[in-house]
Amino acid sequence: MSDSRFFIKKEGVTLGDLCRYLDLAPSSSLDQSLKIDDVCSIEEPKEGCLSFIKTKKNLSVVEEWPSMIFLVDEALALELTSSLPNVLFSKRVEIDFTRSIQYLYPHPFVKAFASGMPSVSLQAKIGQNVTISPGVVIGEGAEIGDGVFLGPNVVIGPNVVIGKHSEIHAGVAIQCALIGSHVVIHQNAAIGQAGFGFTVTPEGFLDIPQIGRVIIEDNVHIGACCTIDRGGLRDTIIRSMTRLDNLIQIGHNVQIGRGCVLVAQVGIAGSTVIGDFSMIGGQVGIADHVTIGKNVKIASKSGVMRDIPDGSVMGGIPCVPIHQWHRTSVILHKLTQKQDKK
Amino acid sequence: MSDSRFFIKKEGVTLGDLCRYLDLAPSSSLDQSLKIDDVCSIEEPKEGCLSFIKTKKNLSVVEEWPSMIFLVDEALALELTSSLPNVLFSKRVEIDFTRSIQYLYPHPFVKAFASGMPSVSLQAKIGQNVTISPGVVIGEGAEIGDGVFLGPNVVIGPNVVIGKHSEIHAGVAIQCALIGSHVVIHQNAAIGQAGFGFTVTPEGFLDIPQIGRVIIEDNVHIGACCTIDRGGLRDTIIRSMTRLDNLIQIGHNVQIGRGCVLVAQVGIAGSTVIGDFSMIGGQVGIADHVTIGKNVKIASKSGVMRDIPDGSVMGGIPCVPIHQWHRTSVILHKLTQKQDKK
Amino acid sequence: MSDSRFFIKKEGVTLGDLCRYLDLAPSSSLDQSLKIDDVCSIEEPKEGCLSFIKTKKNLSVVEEWPSMIFLVDEALALELTSSLPNVLFSKRVEIDFTRSIQYLYPHPFVKAFASGMPSVSLQAKIGQNVTISPGVVIGEGAEIGDGVFLGPNVVIGPNVVIGKHSEIHAGVAIQCALIGSHVVIHQNAAIGQAGFGFTVTPEGFLDIPQIGRVIIEDNVHIGACCTIDRGGLRDTIIRSMTRLDNLIQIGHNVQIGRGCVLVAQVGIAGSTVIGDFSMIGGQVGIADHVTIGKNVKIASKSGVMRDIPDGSVMGGIPCVPIHQWHRTSVILHKLTQKQDKK
Repeated sequence: MSDSRFFIKKEGVTLGDLCRYLDLAPSSSLDQSLKIDDVCSIEEPKEGCLSFIKTKKNLSVVEEWPSMIFLVDEALALELTSSLPNVLFSKRVEIDFTRSIQYLYPHPFVKAFASGMPSVSLQAKIGQNVTISPGVVIGEGAEIGDGVFLGPNVVIGPNVVIGKHSEIHAGVAIQCALIGSHVVIHQNAAIGQAGFGFTVTPEGFLDIPQIGRVIIEDNVHIGACCTIDRGGLRDTIIRSMTRLDNLIQIGHNVQIGRGCVLVAQVGIAGSTVIGDFSMIGGQVGIADHVTIGKNVKIASKSGVMRDIPDGSVMGGIPCVPIHQWHRTSVILHKLTQKQDKK
Repeated sequence: MSDSRFFIKKEGVTLGDLCRYLDLAPSSSLDQSLKIDDVCSIEEPKEGCLSFIKTKKNLSVVEEWPSMIFLVDEALALELTSSLPNVLFSKRVEIDFTRSIQYLYPHPFVKAFASGMPSVSLQAKIGQNVTISPGVVIGEGAEIGDGVFLGPNVVIGPNVVIGKHSEIHAGVAIQCALIGSHVVIHQNAAIGQAGFGFTVTPEGFLDIPQIGRVIIEDNVHIGACCTIDRGGLRDTIIRSMTRLDNLIQIGHNVQIGRGCVLVAQVGIAGSTVIGDFSMIGGQVGIADHVTIGKNVKIASKSGVMRDIPDGSVMGGIPCVPIHQWHRTSVILHKLTQKQDKK
Repeated sequence: MSDSRFFIKKEGVTLGDLCRYLDLAPSSSLDQSLKIDDVCSIEEPKEGCLSFIKTKKNLSVVEEWPSMIFLVDEALALELTSSLPNVLFSKRVEIDFTRSIQYLYPHPFVKAFASGMPSVSLQAKIGQNVTISPGVVIGEGAEIGDGVFLGPNVVIGPNVVIGKHSEIHAGVAIQCALIGSHVVIHQNAAIGQAGFGFTVTPEGFLDIPQIGRVIIEDNVHIGACCTIDRGGLRDTIIRSMTRLDNLIQIGHNVQIGRGCVLVAQVGIAGSTVIGDFSMIGGQVGIADHVTIGKNVKIASKSGVMRDIPDGSVMGGIPCVPIHQWHRTSVILHKLTQKQDKK
């Protein structure tokens, strides 16, 4: 369920409305009066919500969640009991799901400020002993906890929450985010912008509205010029105590555990999960939808394309156990020397 | 021809003036009264403009463009018909060309703002339904199209053009750029700064004035904290529909085609060209003056040092066809295991 | 000695005070009345200052600097002449040293601005012909030299010094820094934030106060969205003429020599030293505490983990002499082709 503080949903949309909008023919058994509460990802099913199914292995969700509504790839039609009242078939299911989200969220977040509003909204809740440096902009409904420091030219978007005693340094811009206490965010970081999400169509890219948030827990530090995208259908989460160095990219839906250390210029693609107390070296790149365990160590400059179990120590592109990577370096060195002697 | 909206050129400069400024002895045949309209790169010859020639293969341009003016490396003097009226010889042709640009463009762009001016210039043209959030700065002569959203603390430089319905988010700074319609630029991106251009001299670096622009066509998205340098003698261009993720570096004179996808932290060095619909994985680096074809796919973390033909799928440092890169990984893995058994 | 313009030190602290604060039992010989002037790193010993010793090889400093004060790992107690008046033993010497710095510097820098202060402090010293664009914030005691250009929304922290004729472009944020003359800093760069410094304890990370500065000498250029952390106990230094492209990370205590060229997206970890006139290719990563010589060239995308002597040309991950790296590429290519034929 998207956070109504950040995203405005069209209410009262029925399955019939959606059919007409998507120009899909409803089967006779379809219950066109079904209300669509929201959209959700198939990995996080929710009552009353619309999701889409493109692969056979996800079809079981249809039976397990009769209270949901599904857009299902027409190619899977024969696999389903015919005449379900909550299933709509589509020939281009990803595109139609994207268009459904656009239909439910017609007004993107961006119009949240307005010409002529004061720099610090009178509708913001400002705690005790808050420092509001020159040039700070605070949107409507934002909540700034006691003892917070906001450096010059910081931008706090509407309804953003900043916990007690956090330090937000000069030039940082934050939107669609809930920030904990004792958090430090360094100069010119960018938090909460829309993630890199679109569907490829024959007519071009179709943007997927990004209706998740950024959640940053207590005592997290974020480096200068880091970029943390808000979630797509879920949230982007950084758990307590974790430290991010400068110029780090965190894609949408990423979840980073407690007490992790990410060195400068790391890039983590969308929906990847990192367990507690893991350490990621500088300039490491991690692909999307990967699961990294707890207490994992990854050498700097590595490239991670697959899941990594708890406690592993890895290195290389693509990364392998670190001793193996070291051995490969040694072997290559020997081969090169042998070649020299010939 | 540089855009007079952004760069002020000294008018009426003759070849004689230039000889005196550069302290070069004119040959008797040189037409010192020739007017120098502007400077251009030898790849893009233009009537009335000054360029320089350092290698034999470019000498043909001298004959093909008698209406141009040339600084030619003295070492090539014997290769040319003696006594051309539009050719000036130099012992250090790159340095003298750089100094010529400095002579024609003595006032760099940066003084474009002034103390005491209002945040939003009264000389800017603001369309209908434009949102100007608190802290926005708009320079003289800028044009903001209908329905544009400017987030808090956005900086729009003098004479910059923003097309209809574009979204420029908090903290973005733009100068020397023409931005299309329905463009989205995310928080704290930096567009249009001078590129990384200098000539090495015995006395140190000599800065090459960067007098090109950034052109961003319709429907392009630019991620947070991306940096897009303006062109040197030409323009930096990003064509319609292309999507840039966060923290991407685009060097001066780069041209990116339509419908491309660049994942986070990609870096593209100066003057490189990328064809339509190509996809560049995260953290890829591409060298300068490289030509990447259309529909090319490059795996994340790759390093590209050479041209890549249309439709290629590449990976590795330096990058090779992707199946070859995968095979190399397999072979290295086997070699390491063999070593283990010994 | 930290710069009192940026950091406020608790005065009059004695070794006895420290014992009580750290809850360490003083030996009978300890001179509890000794004044602690400041903290310093063991690599840069200073009279009257407190440092810590964890390894045997550093013990000689204790004898050479009887005017200093030392926190020494208890495991090294037997190695020292018993009953030194200036040595305090600790079971967890790194944690206790970190806590000592926190004790001496209880008020971090960040509260340097205040709500309601004017954008440009009346206590700042502004030179002749300075351009202060709209939205600029200048803290108390800052000094802006003649002819400086400050672009829109630039933030100059308290007591920061900007030398003559420097250009600081839109959105740049600077704190705890001394900037030379004719320096150019491009849009949205972040200079002087606290470095990535903490001690790991069983209870979590303990932040090491970062009480050094950023020193940028004359004629340096810094690219857009670069991040340059201030020093921990020492300074981060970039010497004259050096050029940084965009999106570069410079860790705390790093020293970069004169006339160096760093291409975009380079990352340099803490305390690394780079000699004069070295050239670092794009996306190179250099580990912490490494010494790179003068006139070194490093190919783009390389990973540097060890010292590199003067004049070397290197490439690869980990980097090796460039001809060796090229040969390795050739060998791998041959191996892959051989495999194909089988």
